[in-house]
Amino acid sequence: MTTTSIIGFIAALLTTASFLPQAFKTIRSKNTQGLSLFMYVIFSSGVFLWLVYGIRIGDMPVIIANAVTLVFALIILGYKIRYK
Amino acid sequence: MTTTSIIGFIAALLTTASFLPQAFKTIRSKNTQGLSLFMYVIFSSGVFLWLVYGIRIGDMPVIIANAVTLVFALIILGYKIRYK
Repeated sequence: MTTTSIIGFIAALLTTASFLPQAFKTIRSKNTQGLSLFMYVIFSSGVFLWLVYGIRIGDMPVIIANAVTLVFALIILGYKIRYK
Repeated sequence: MTTTSIIGFIAALLTTASFLPQAFKTIRSKNTQGLSLFMYVIFSSGVFLWLVYGIRIGDMPVIIANAVTLVFALIILGYKIRYK
């Protein structure tokens, strides 16, 4: 693996890791009152497009980071819509 | 500009846009109590490494999205450390 790939995977690990505790907390508590539905739709759409972009340029760090984030973002978005 | 580049720039615009309202709110209020210092250090480090990664692979959407996010993340991190 090249140095560049390693930097990309560490970057992916760090930004995804910083998102997960809040995501787990929200999913466990089902409390989405502090989240803006509009902002979460924008965020989830952005993460989805990053995933599409990563697939199109064949970039694994971009694909993995955004695939993992998208799963949790969509779960939270579902809760936000269901429990609002 | 290719379709892939356009997708990348829209992705960059959306995820950055979804981060900015919270960033502006935090910067205006200087209230960083709701933020975890540890998580913010992880997030900022990740965004920094994404920027390095973007520069190394020469990818403009990755560079721009993470450069903009890093500026605001570092301002908030500075507030967090100063006003904690």
